[in-house]
Amino acid sequence: MSVTTNRQVLLTESPSGKLEVGHFRLHPAPMPVPAEGEVLLRVRYLSLDAANRAWMQGATYRAAVESGSVMAGHALAEVVESRAQGLTAGDLVFADTGWQEYAALPAKGLQPLPRLEPLTHLLSVYGIAGLTAYFGLLEIGRPKAGDTVVVSAAAGSVGSLVGQIAKIHGARVVGIAGGPAKCAALTGELGFDAAVDYKAGSLYKDLKAAAPAGIDVYFDNVGGDIFEACLFQMNLHGRIACCGAVSQYDGKPPAHGPRGVPGLIVTKRLTLQGFILHDFMPRSGEALAELQKWVAEGRLKVKEDIVDGLENAPAGLVGLLAGENLGKRMVRVS
Amino acid sequence: MSVTTNRQVLLTESPSGKLEVGHFRLHPAPMPVPAEGEVLLRVRYLSLDAANRAWMQGATYRAAVESGSVMAGHALAEVVESRAQGLTAGDLVFADTGWQEYAALPAKGLQPLPRLEPLTHLLSVYGIAGLTAYFGLLEIGRPKAGDTVVVSAAAGSVGSLVGQIAKIHGARVVGIAGGPAKCAALTGELGFDAAVDYKAGSLYKDLKAAAPAGIDVYFDNVGGDIFEACLFQMNLHGRIACCGAVSQYDGKPPAHGPRGVPGLIVTKRLTLQGFILHDFMPRSGEALAELQKWVAEGRLKVKEDIVDGLENAPAGLVGLLAGENLGKRMVRVS
Repeated sequence: MSVTTNRQVLLTESPSGKLEVGHFRLHPAPMPVPAEGEVLLRVRYLSLDAANRAWMQGATYRAAVESGSVMAGHALAEVVESRAQGLTAGDLVFADTGWQEYAALPAKGLQPLPRLEPLTHLLSVYGIAGLTAYFGLLEIGRPKAGDTVVVSAAAGSVGSLVGQIAKIHGARVVGIAGGPAKCAALTGELGFDAAVDYKAGSLYKDLKAAAPAGIDVYFDNVGGDIFEACLFQMNLHGRIACCGAVSQYDGKPPAHGPRGVPGLIVTKRLTLQGFILHDFMPRSGEALAELQKWVAEGRLKVKEDIVDGLENAPAGLVGLLAGENLGKRMVRVS
Repeated sequence: MSVTTNRQVLLTESPSGKLEVGHFRLHPAPMPVPAEGEVLLRVRYLSLDAANRAWMQGATYRAAVESGSVMAGHALAEVVESRAQGLTAGDLVFADTGWQEYAALPAKGLQPLPRLEPLTHLLSVYGIAGLTAYFGLLEIGRPKAGDTVVVSAAAGSVGSLVGQIAKIHGARVVGIAGGPAKCAALTGELGFDAAVDYKAGSLYKDLKAAAPAGIDVYFDNVGGDIFEACLFQMNLHGRIACCGAVSQYDGKPPAHGPRGVPGLIVTKRLTLQGFILHDFMPRSGEALAELQKWVAEGRLKVKEDIVDGLENAPAGLVGLLAGENLGKRMVRVS
C-alpha cells in the first residue's frame, strides 16, 4: 500500500518569530498522477537550506510559502514515470518538488543530473552550495593571493567550501563559526588558517587576532552583529560578498542595521555586492569542471550532514537555523 | 599694515556633537615666510565642504584636525612669492592651505590651475565637486538611458551636478533636498524630473511617487534615514554610489545603521560602492574635458553660493551642514 500513497510536510503556520517543529505537519496525500508533459518524481534527497526559512517571509526572490501548503524545497529526485519527451524512468533531476515523497511536475524546468557517486554530492559541492561558494567568492569577492578572506557560517554548506576555495587561490582564510568543535574542524580537516568562535563572547578581539592585517574579502552568510564586526575591520578597497542573512531570517526583521553603513563604505572605499546563484547559472559548467577537479585532487573536502526520513525534515531545518550542522545538511527521503 | 599680517581661523575645540561657530576663533598670526622650495600663497577662495566636518572626527582618509590648530581646508590660491622652480608670482593653484589668508607651502604637492572665468568654477564644476559627481555617477552608479537615478543633497555642490549629468545620460532624475525652495530649483532651473522634500515628513511615500518604477541608481551623499528609504525602493541589480554620509558627521556616531543591510542587498542583488575622488584623479583630464563641453553648451548649470570674508567661514560651514546652501559654497577671502 505504501507506494500508492504520498507523504507531504505542510507548513501549517507562517512563523513570525523563531521557527519550530510545531509549525509543520505530516500529511498523507494521494499519489500524484503526471499529466501529459509531466513526470512523476520520487524524491531521493531533500536539500535543507537557510533560504528555506527566508522563503516563509516572502521578501525574497521567490513567492512566500503560504501556510497550509506543502513546504517548498529543492530535491534530488528520480523519474519513476514519464509522460514527457527527453526524460525516462531512472533519470535523475534537480527539482523544486517541495517536502514530499512524490511529485508530478512538468518536465520543462527540471534540471537533469548525471549519475555519480556519492549521489549526495549533487546537492552539496556540485549543487547550489558549491556553485554559490564558487561564484560568490571568485566573482563577487575576487580574492587575490595573499588577501585575508573571512567567511561566516564557515562550517556550513557554503562557508566550508568558500574557505577551501579561497585557500586554493592563495588567500589567508579565517572562518567564523559557533562552538569549539566546528572551529577545530575548520582549522583541522578543512585547512583554514584560523577560526573564530562567535559564541565565545569576544568577537571583535578574536577577529582582530585572527586577521591581524585586516580583512580584504568578507563572504557574509549571516548579517547582523558578525557583519558589523567584519565591516569595521575591512581594509581599504575591500569587498563584501553578501550571500545571505541567516541571523535575520528566524525572527522579526531587525529594528536597525549594522553601524558603519554607509560611513565606512565611503572612507574605506568598500564594495558590498549581493548576489544569488541564479544570476550565474549560465556559467555553471565552468564552475562544475573546476569543483570536480579540486575534489578529485583531494584539495576540496566535502562535508555532508544527512538526516534520515522525511518526517525529520522540520527538525532538520530548525537545527540548521540554530547552526547544529557541519557541512551540507540534507534529508534522505527514499 | 594689513598685508604684513596673516589672519587664521583656528578650531579651538573638537566638537563631539553639533558644530557651532563658537568652536572656532579668529587668530592674528605673523605673515608666513616661504623657505627654499616653497611658495607664499594668498588665498582667493576657500572651499567649504561637508567633508571638513568629517575631518574633525578623524575617522576618514586624512588625519583629524587637532583642536588649537588652523582649520583644514582646500583653497584656490595665488602665488605671491616663489622660492621654487616651476611656479611664479601670479600663478593659480589648488592647495591645502587651511583657513587663513596666507600660507607658505612646498611647491611640490600644489596643483596648478588654469586662469579661466569665472575663477570660482575651479572650485565647483571643475573642482572636487564636479569631478566627484562625474566619476561617482558614471563609474560607480553606471546609469543607463531610461534608468531612474535618485540623488540626495541634490541641491548641494555635488548633487546638483550629479542630477544634471544623469539627465545628459538619458536617465530619469529625482533629487532629494530640504525645503520647497530647493526643490523648486531642482525641477525648474536644473531640469530634474522630480524633487522630494525630505523635510515634508512623508519621505517614503513621496519618494515612491517621484520614482514609481523604483530606483536603479542611488547617489548617496547623506546616509541615515534617506539612505534607508532609498535602499528599500531599489530595483533588482541596482547600484548605490556611497559618496558621503553628511547626516552622520555632525553629531555622535549613530547607534545603528540602516535597516535592510545586508538582507535587501542580497535579495535585490545590489551593489553598494564607496569611493573618494582621489582614486580617480589620474583620469581627471577626461572628466574636465566633458564638463567644460557641457558647461559651454549650456547643458550643465553651475550653482555657486559665495560667502564673503574669512571671518564668515565658520558660519558658512555650520550653515552648509544645516543645508542652507544651494550649489557649491565657498568663501571669498581676498
